Amino acid sequence: MVEEKENVASANAASGQEPVSKKGAKKQAKAAKKAEQKAENAAAIAADEAAGDNAADHAAGRYGLSEMIQSKDKRSEREFVLVPELSQHVGKGLVWVRGRVHTSRAKGKQCFLILRQQSSSVQCILAVGDVISKQMVKFAGNIPKESIIDIQAKPVAVANKIESCTEQLVELSVEQIFVISQAKAQLPLQIEDASRPENPDDAEGLNIRVNQDTRLDNRVLDLRTPANQAIFRLEAGVCRLFRDILTDQGFTEIHTPKIISAASEGGANVFTVSYFKDSAYLAQSPQLYKQMAIAADFDKVFTVGAVFRAEDSNTHRHLTEFVGLDLEMAFKYHYHEVLHTIGNTFTAIFKGLRDKYSREIEAVGQQYKVDAFKFLEPPLILQFAEGVAMLREAGVETGDEEDLSTPNEKLLGRLVKAKYDTDFYILDKFPLAIRPFYTMPDPNNPVYSNSYDMFMRGEEILSGAQRIHDPEYLIERAKHHGIDTSKIAAYIESFRYGCPPHAGGGIGMERVVMLYLGLDNIRKTSMFPRDPKRLTP
Amino acid sequence: MVEEKENVASANAASGQEPVSKKGAKKQAKAAKKAEQKAENAAAIAADEAAGDNAADHAAGRYGLSEMIQSKDKRSEREFVLVPELSQHVGKGLVWVRGRVHTSRAKGKQCFLILRQQSSSVQCILAVGDVISKQMVKFAGNIPKESIIDIQAKPVAVANKIESCTEQLVELSVEQIFVISQAKAQLPLQIEDASRPENPDDAEGLNIRVNQDTRLDNRVLDLRTPANQAIFRLEAGVCRLFRDILTDQGFTEIHTPKIISAASEGGANVFTVSYFKDSAYLAQSPQLYKQMAIAADFDKVFTVGAVFRAEDSNTHRHLTEFVGLDLEMAFKYHYHEVLHTIGNTFTAIFKGLRDKYSREIEAVGQQYKVDAFKFLEPPLILQFAEGVAMLREAGVETGDEEDLSTPNEKLLGRLVKAKYDTDFYILDKFPLAIRPFYTMPDPNNPVYSNSYDMFMRGEEILSGAQRIHDPEYLIERAKHHGIDTSKIAAYIESFRYGCPPHAGGGIGMERVVMLYLGLDNIRKTSMFPRDPKRLTP
Repeated sequence: MVEEKENVASANAASGQEPVSKKGAKKQAKAAKKAEQKAENAAAIAADEAAGDNAADHAAGRYGLSEMIQSKDKRSEREFVLVPELSQHVGKGLVWVRGRVHTSRAKGKQCFLILRQQSSSVQCILAVGDVISKQMVKFAGNIPKESIIDIQAKPVAVANKIESCTEQLVELSVEQIFVISQAKAQLPLQIEDASRPENPDDAEGLNIRVNQDTRLDNRVLDLRTPANQAIFRLEAGVCRLFRDILTDQGFTEIHTPKIISAASEGGANVFTVSYFKDSAYLAQSPQLYKQMAIAADFDKVFTVGAVFRAEDSNTHRHLTEFVGLDLEMAFKYHYHEVLHTIGNTFTAIFKGLRDKYSREIEAVGQQYKVDAFKFLEPPLILQFAEGVAMLREAGVETGDEEDLSTPNEKLLGRLVKAKYDTDFYILDKFPLAIRPFYTMPDPNNPVYSNSYDMFMRGEEILSGAQRIHDPEYLIERAKHHGIDTSKIAAYIESFRYGCPPHAGGGIGMERVVMLYLGLDNIRKTSMFPRDPKRLTP
Repeated sequence: MVEEKENVASANAASGQEPVSKKGAKKQAKAAKKAEQKAENAAAIAADEAAGDNAADHAAGRYGLSEMIQSKDKRSEREFVLVPELSQHVGKGLVWVRGRVHTSRAKGKQCFLILRQQSSSVQCILAVGDVISKQMVKFAGNIPKESIIDIQAKPVAVANKIESCTEQLVELSVEQIFVISQAKAQLPLQIEDASRPENPDDAEGLNIRVNQDTRLDNRVLDLRTPANQAIFRLEAGVCRLFRDILTDQGFTEIHTPKIISAASEGGANVFTVSYFKDSAYLAQSPQLYKQMAIAADFDKVFTVGAVFRAEDSNTHRHLTEFVGLDLEMAFKYHYHEVLHTIGNTFTAIFKGLRDKYSREIEAVGQQYKVDAFKFLEPPLILQFAEGVAMLREAGVETGDEEDLSTPNEKLLGRLVKAKYDTDFYILDKFPLAIRPFYTMPDPNNPVYSNSYDMFMRGEEILSGAQRIHDPEYLIERAKHHGIDTSKIAAYIESFRYGCPPHAGGGIGMERVVMLYLGLDNIRKTSMFPRDPKRLTP
C-alpha cells in the first residue's frame, strides 16, 4: 500500500507541470483534472518524467504514455512474443511483449518490474546506462500496478532461479517501455492479496485475505488471479467435454426458451417477467422442451443454458441463475440405458479434466487446498435403500421414504468415500413420494421410482429420472399429486402423438466445477454470480 | 384425411368390445373412455383384433399393444438395427427395428407400412401366410400414424426402387409387430403435408400447406419433418463450428448473467423481472460482461446464450428471445485484427456446413427452394461509404450518416451479389452518429467509427465494433449522447484498472441458419420461437 500513497502524492504535486510531448499533453490534462477531483495519480508518470532535466534525457522517445490505441494506423508489423515463449528467444535479440505491470520497484539506478500476462509472469530490468536514463528508470518505477504496457527487451538467461515469476530462468532487459492503458493507482484489492494461498502451512503475519464481497464487487480485478484464470478455463473445459462427449454419441444440441408462459412446477420459486401486456416466467429447467425434442424424434438431445430459481437460499451452493447442462435420451427398454450413458459421461469428463487441465488444476491448488478428485470406472451405483442402510449403520435416523437432508447427503458422501474410495457416485431408485409427478414409478416396488441423483464430494450435482411418456398415466399421476391437469394440458398433449420411453437429467455446471476442484463456495465458479442479494456487477 | 375418419368410426364402433389380452385390457379400458369423450380411436387397434376370430389366430402373440415400457425388466438383450443400416442385413435373417408408423395401408391380405426413423424410412410388408394372420394384417393396417412400433423383420432386397422411402433397395418382411406408444388417430397436422415442397414445379392440386401457426402450435409433430430434422441438426452444427473454430484460436468460453440490475442501453426494449423485492432486467446482450472478461485478462472470449429483446416487432426476422453467438477479443494496434478474425470465422463456418452438413442442406432443399450459399475467401470487406455509393448509383437517395434501412440493406445485398458473387460480406466504418456511445470513433475521420456489420443474403447477422477502453473518453462520449453517466458508473469503472484495446461482435444464431439456408422466416430456425404474440409451446 505504501507505493500507492507515494503515487497519489506525486500526482498531486504534479498538477500543472509541463508535459513532455504533445501526445502526453492531452492525456495529462485530462488526468490532472481527475487528480484534482479524486486525488488520483494518473499524471504521476508524466510528472516524474518532467521532473528530470528533459534536455539531458538520452532515453527520450524510448518510454512514455502511449496515445490511446484507436486503430489509427494500419496494422503494425510489430510481432509480439508471449511470456511462456520467451525462453526460446534468449540470445536472439530484441522482442516486444505486452502485459500488465504486476509490481514495479525503482531503487536508485535500477528498476525491477514484474510483467504479468494472464497466469504467466517474467521479471524485467531497467538499469541506467547507455540505453536507459535516470528518468526512464523513475518512469518505470512509477507505473501503477495493473497498467498494461508494451516493452521492447532482450530476453536474457539468469544464473539464479527467479522464484517470484513463472518464467524462472529468463529475464527481460528492457530498452523501451510504453504505457498502453494506465490503471488507477489505488486498487480496491491487490492481486497479490487475492492470490494468496488460503491455507498456508506457515502462518505468517502477512496473510491478508480479500473477502468474497470485495472480490465480487471488483470482479474485473479478482478474475486476474492465477486461480481464477484457471477456474474459468477449466469451467470452459467442462462444457466443452460435456458437449463433445455427447455429440460423439449422436446427441444433438438444442436451444430451449427461457421465457415461458406457465411456471414449470406449480409456480413456486419462479421469477415473473412482464411480457408486453402479459406476464410470463423464467424457466426453472429446460425439461419440458427436452422432452418435446424427444417426442419430436431427436432421440438424444442436450442443451447448455441459463436456468433460473427464485429461491431465497443464501447458501454456499445456491445461485438464482446458473448454467444447466441438461440431457434427455430415448431408450429401448430400461432407463438404465440412460443412467449408464450419464454416468459414463461424467467419467469421461473427469478423465478429460485430469488429462487436459492438469495445469489449471495445479494453479487452483496453489491457492486453495484441493484434494485430487477420485472416481471409479465404471461409476459406483448404489440403491437409495442401500444409502439409507449405510446412514442408519452410522447412527442416523432416517425414514425409507424420506429425502436426504443436506447433512445426511454429505455424511453419505463421506461414508461412500471411506468404503469405495470415490468422490462420484450414483444413487438410484429414489422414493416415489419425494419426486415430481412426471417421474416414472418403479414397476417392481410401489415405494420407489425410476429416478436417480448423482453426487460429487457428497453434494448433489444431477437429478434425473425416467419420465412418464404415457399421457393417461401422466394425468393419473398428476391428479395423485393434486395438480390441476388443465394447467399442464400442453405438457400432456406432447405425449399424444407417439413418444418413446425416455429419461434424462440436469446438471448444475457451477456445482460440478466447485466440487471437482473441492472449492467451498459456488460463487467461486460463477463468473458473475447471482444470488438473492447480488445482482451486480 | 380419409383414413383418420375411418379410424374414428371404428373406434366408436369398438367401444366395449372384448379385449385380446390382459395387457391390452387396461389400455383398452382407458382408451375406450377417452374415445367416448372425444371420438378418439385409441381402441381401434384392439377392437380390430377382437373383431377377428381369436381362437383361429395363428399369429397370436406376434403382434399387439405393448405394455407401457416402465423399465420393468433388466436391460433387454435385443439388438436394434437403424434404418440406414438395414441394407447391410439383407439375407442375414431377422432384425429388430423401432420406429414410427409413417403410413400404413391394409389391402386384402397384405399390409404396406412405411416405418420412419428420424429422416430415414423403409417399406414394411405383412402378407397373410404361415407367419402372418388375417387379424395381424388388419391390426397393422389400423395402427395410427406416428405411433411408435417395434418390428421384427427380414430385410429383403427389392427388384424395383421404392421411391417413397429413403431405403429404396430394401424392404422389411415383418414377422412381429408391437405398438410401443400409440398416437392419437386424429393428428392436428399430417407429416406428409408439413413435409411437402413449398415451391413444387408441377402445380398439382394436392398441394396442401400447413400454416405456420398450426406448425408452431403442434411443434412436436412439425419438428418430425425431414426438413426440420435437418434444420436443427445444422443449427447444432453452427454452434459447434463457432465454438470449435474459436477455441482452436485460443478463445475461452464464458457464461454471462441474463438477469441484470440495470438496463444495458437506456432501458428501451428491455424485459423487466421481479427479483425478490426488487426489479431487474433481462440482458439484451452479454456485451458488458464480455468486455469485463477482456479487462479481466481472458484476452479472447466467446459466449453462446439467450438474449432478450422486448421489441414489439412482428417481422420475419425478429424474435423476443434468441441465441446469441458473441465474441470479444483484445487486439494489439488495430481493430481489423478482430474484424479479420470474425470474418474468417464465418468463412470457416460456411466451409464446415458445406462439407459436413451436405445431407442436411439437401434435405432442407427438398422442401424449400435453397440456392447454395456463396462466399469469398477471404471475405469481401466494403467501406460503409462504398456501400452508400453503390446504393446511390442504383438510384437510392441516402445520406452519408444515415443508417441503412431494411430495404436498402437488402438492395445492397443484391448489388453486392451481382458485382462480387458473394452472399456474405462485411461493411466497415459505419457513421459514428448511428452507433452506440461506447463505439470507438474513427481517428482519421470524425464522421465514421471503428464499427462494422456483417451480412448474409442482404440481412444483418452481426453488429460489432472497437469499444472505447479509456474511461475518460468513454465518459466524454456518453455525455455527448446525453447519457446519465452515474447510471453506467460500474461499466466505466471496469476500464479503470488497465484494459487492452478490444473489439467484438454479436451474432444472431437463428438468423445465420435462416439466411444460410435461404429460409423466409426466423421461426423456422428457432425450435420453440418467442415473439410478441407467441409464448407457447
